[in-house]
Amino acid sequence: MSLIVARTVQEVRTLLALPRRDLKKIGLVPTMGALHSGHAGLIENARSGSDFVAVSIFVNPLQFGPGEDYLRYPRPLEKDLDVCERLGADLVFAPEASEMYAVEPRTFVEVTRLGDHLCGPFRPGHFRGVTTVVAKLFNIVQPDRAWFGEKDYQQLCVIRRMVQDLNFAVEIVPVPIYRDADGLALSSRNAYLNSEDRAAAPALFRALSIAAAMIEKGERAAAVIKESARRFLAEHPRIRLEYFEIVDPLELQPVLDINAPVRIAGAVWIGKTRLIDNVAASPPK
Amino acid sequence: MSLIVARTVQEVRTLLALPRRDLKKIGLVPTMGALHSGHAGLIENARSGSDFVAVSIFVNPLQFGPGEDYLRYPRPLEKDLDVCERLGADLVFAPEASEMYAVEPRTFVEVTRLGDHLCGPFRPGHFRGVTTVVAKLFNIVQPDRAWFGEKDYQQLCVIRRMVQDLNFAVEIVPVPIYRDADGLALSSRNAYLNSEDRAAAPALFRALSIAAAMIEKGERAAAVIKESARRFLAEHPRIRLEYFEIVDPLELQPVLDINAPVRIAGAVWIGKTRLIDNVAASPPK
Repeated sequence: MSLIVARTVQEVRTLLALPRRDLKKIGLVPTMGALHSGHAGLIENARSGSDFVAVSIFVNPLQFGPGEDYLRYPRPLEKDLDVCERLGADLVFAPEASEMYAVEPRTFVEVTRLGDHLCGPFRPGHFRGVTTVVAKLFNIVQPDRAWFGEKDYQQLCVIRRMVQDLNFAVEIVPVPIYRDADGLALSSRNAYLNSEDRAAAPALFRALSIAAAMIEKGERAAAVIKESARRFLAEHPRIRLEYFEIVDPLELQPVLDINAPVRIAGAVWIGKTRLIDNVAASPPK
Repeated sequence: MSLIVARTVQEVRTLLALPRRDLKKIGLVPTMGALHSGHAGLIENARSGSDFVAVSIFVNPLQFGPGEDYLRYPRPLEKDLDVCERLGADLVFAPEASEMYAVEPRTFVEVTRLGDHLCGPFRPGHFRGVTTVVAKLFNIVQPDRAWFGEKDYQQLCVIRRMVQDLNFAVEIVPVPIYRDADGLALSSRNAYLNSEDRAAAPALFRALSIAAAMIEKGERAAAVIKESARRFLAEHPRIRLEYFEIVDPLELQPVLDINAPVRIAGAVWIGKTRLIDNVAASPPK
């Protein structure tokens, strides 16, 4: 079966009627395109975890703030379609913004509390844009399962909570972060980096790894750990730290005294490029 | 086939798997129970417009404000089940609040602008509670069609907009208002009225009818029409007017100069009981 490309909501509904009638398990991988090996991992997971794999490619204006990179965001659609075809996806849904937002959007899905820290304060409206478009995609595709990468850990938690609270009949499947050999988490935004920036970029993952090692060795004071990470990152002149935080893994609230598994997450700017990353860590038993 | 009563989300999903597999058209009538002839009309419409009729009975705490009648709201479940059985419903979903909100709800669906007037300002959070629970019910039942009464006209518009914006695969079917012989719109809250209050209650519909007649005779100035209605209602000492407004029928924004079809809507208090009603009106061609 070769790849079908749908540009409208109606096409998706029509194309999915038959597999749904045949009780095929439908999988969805929501993306903004510019697919890299991390996305390939999501699609491969979806391929083995469902009967019919839909990939959405949509750079969602609703999740970009005024000063952000919506216009600049890469859109290599032909290349992305080749990737999807090669990985055995059945359907790509690649709508125009005018199809997804045919009328001025007035309805928003918002998850409170989980967006209060980490990226939330730095990207006002971002998660509201994400949850709203993901709710739309869930209603359009009506998948049995959907795959999300842990690179966007806060997004994953927010969507998981949305699914739980609103009773979406979708199982959310998290996929671990894909990294380059030097540790840099794969991201479509890595394409913005010049060679010097690219050389500096793995420092974020190294800072996260230092923090995780401190926790695993028994350091419980989050302030001490965060200060170490900050000092480490301050040695890298190309890097400007936005946040470095240690939170509980479900509601993403900052933890002061680490006595249970946590998530450590950070965001940095390298020139005009913003990168995020995160790792899990647990104190010794 | 006799009526099945489900108390949990999981039961509903299990019970609906078979009719869905058989490609039966699933209809949903969301209610808060205390069913009257207006609800009966919704269920009858659903019976003729779908193959499998689900009625939800749930007094949703999320849509009641702090001083409102959540605890006092009538809950005659056995009687309601009889009504559903008699009208040929297939399934009643009657969950406890602890089933619908098993964890502290953090996710909310909000429709902006359409809640800015009419009931919106007087019931802060109400429509957010309505859209959130209806989104949940849509995800739990996954109906092909859902029936809503025009008595709650603003609710109908808000839900229709939510469905459009979030691409729910549900057709919303509006049902005209059912009225007693003297014009009073049927409402579960009419049960709160003593006989003197009940005698005064039709004044709201009469005020709406006066306004509609003025519009149909060519009066275009909303201010003139609203003033007439206010004066008429002021003659009824048991009645306290909350709002009386003339709005466009889609986005529910107040209209000053009436040159297209409008909706006229009002809310009054009679003692501790709040009643709402509305009518359509069009200027002469």
